[in-house]
Amino acid sequence: MATYIFGHTTPDSDSIVGAISLSYLKNQLGEDTIPARQGEINPETAFILDKFDHEAPELKTEFAGEDVYLVDFSDLAQAPKDIKEANILGIVDHHKLGDITTDAPLECWIRPVGCSNTIIKQMFDYYGIEIPKKIAGMMMCAILSDTVIFKSPTCTKEDTKACKELAKIAGIEDYKALGMEMFIVKSDVLSATPRELVTRDFKDFNMNGNLIGVGQLEVVDLSVFDTMKADLMEDMKKLKEEGGRHSVLLLLTDIMKVGSQLLVVSDEPEKIENAFNIKLDSNSEAWLEGVMSRKKQIIPFLEKQF
Amino acid sequence: MATYIFGHTTPDSDSIVGAISLSYLKNQLGEDTIPARQGEINPETAFILDKFDHEAPELKTEFAGEDVYLVDFSDLAQAPKDIKEANILGIVDHHKLGDITTDAPLECWIRPVGCSNTIIKQMFDYYGIEIPKKIAGMMMCAILSDTVIFKSPTCTKEDTKACKELAKIAGIEDYKALGMEMFIVKSDVLSATPRELVTRDFKDFNMNGNLIGVGQLEVVDLSVFDTMKADLMEDMKKLKEEGGRHSVLLLLTDIMKVGSQLLVVSDEPEKIENAFNIKLDSNSEAWLEGVMSRKKQIIPFLEKQF
Repeated sequence: MATYIFGHTTPDSDSIVGAISLSYLKNQLGEDTIPARQGEINPETAFILDKFDHEAPELKTEFAGEDVYLVDFSDLAQAPKDIKEANILGIVDHHKLGDITTDAPLECWIRPVGCSNTIIKQMFDYYGIEIPKKIAGMMMCAILSDTVIFKSPTCTKEDTKACKELAKIAGIEDYKALGMEMFIVKSDVLSATPRELVTRDFKDFNMNGNLIGVGQLEVVDLSVFDTMKADLMEDMKKLKEEGGRHSVLLLLTDIMKVGSQLLVVSDEPEKIENAFNIKLDSNSEAWLEGVMSRKKQIIPFLEKQF
Repeated sequence: MATYIFGHTTPDSDSIVGAISLSYLKNQLGEDTIPARQGEINPETAFILDKFDHEAPELKTEFAGEDVYLVDFSDLAQAPKDIKEANILGIVDHHKLGDITTDAPLECWIRPVGCSNTIIKQMFDYYGIEIPKKIAGMMMCAILSDTVIFKSPTCTKEDTKACKELAKIAGIEDYKALGMEMFIVKSDVLSATPRELVTRDFKDFNMNGNLIGVGQLEVVDLSVFDTMKADLMEDMKKLKEEGGRHSVLLLLTDIMKVGSQLLVVSDEPEKIENAFNIKLDSNSEAWLEGVMSRKKQIIPFLEKQF
């Protein structure tokens, strides 16, 4: 029976590429694994897959009775609904330790770095397995995406080192230019519906019984959102109701200005204000100077409030 | 501020030695760490510390506001009461993934091997740090203890490899003889009170809201318990009431016969019977042929019942 490897719901590039790269590594080590994904490919990931001519992992959302490896998450809220009936063999992740538990011993490669693919690169090195050129290129892109081309405060020396080594294997000299190209693709938000945008990179967290959804859009210039903020806010309200959520937050991150406009819909907006020591304006927005990372600059402060 | 490193409540040799060995490694890597322990040193661990002339880690049970690394557990039931107010920087463990969660990213070295010190040995190798002779000897003993001198079904090739390499560093040729000496020390149960015996290697697990305590005593000949089983059972009943537990189980493991006598006190003994497909006798006992490992042969089957 093959083992499925997949990332979180509403997969980002790290989740998709991580499933592919970890599956390749595990197969080289003699296991029989298949990369999978829990949701649609986003435009940035489509750009990466197209660039390196690789097919998308199989779409699959039910895993009862299957052996699985998880990449890029350890929270039940980001897992398949039937995860408790799956047999989790391992987790590769770079986030806080979530509420997934197992019945039996497993392997966890969890590190406080900027990207799961940095850890997978270290795993390739640990086992002495060569990384194929195309997979190296995709892993490099995942790191550039997660670290916002090394600008995110989550970026560590290990990420830049892994990224540079992967660029070399992939034969790509100007990897920062490729990163910028990727973020320009990501900035094309005009053709998408509000729902597509709010949920493009969206994660739910269970904070002491309260479901908090946090989306993020990273663009090269925030002004693209000027005409659509009201529609985004409207959709966030709907998303909050539909999911029985306590709050829905959306971070509009300006990767050049290095900061994020925060949009908030919440049962207790004062808790969000307290978390970041801010006042929301009459549109329920606030500018968070220097904030680029959901996992490092948003989630821990929310967790403390709940 | 120094970081504390410690194992689970009612520490065993792996927990104590793991705190010492991981602290040494982290300090070599430039961190400032202190090994600690949550409870008393058991006779086997005392033998190891004495043999390699090393002091016991500091006794400490409150960690609010402290930075900490955890060794050999990831279950809240085995953690200090104030663990949610501590800042968990990392976990090294070889058990199922427990219900400890964190607010921020961390490092987890969790592997399905027989002993935490096997993983710590791999960490020393990963970082290219030399292991001092005495620490190598203690780590070797921790592996011999956890794997029951390689007889436990939890023992992997990685454990035997690490153990042999550590024996070489420690300059110990007949490591199996030393392991046997250790188990003879462990078998000296006549001078201990029933409470000391039941709790000597005791772990609580929260199974879907039910607190299940499982103790284990490993001896070279089960007949030492012949005259004390009634007293042990009496004390297990008390321990169950005192802790509001659903069940208290005690495994009397015969390391030569390779099997365990299971003693049970439970609100629902039929669940325990179903878990192992056994019938408890009139003394609420049953022989489990081949069962040596709590984590691999007991806990997963109990988890499935709850």
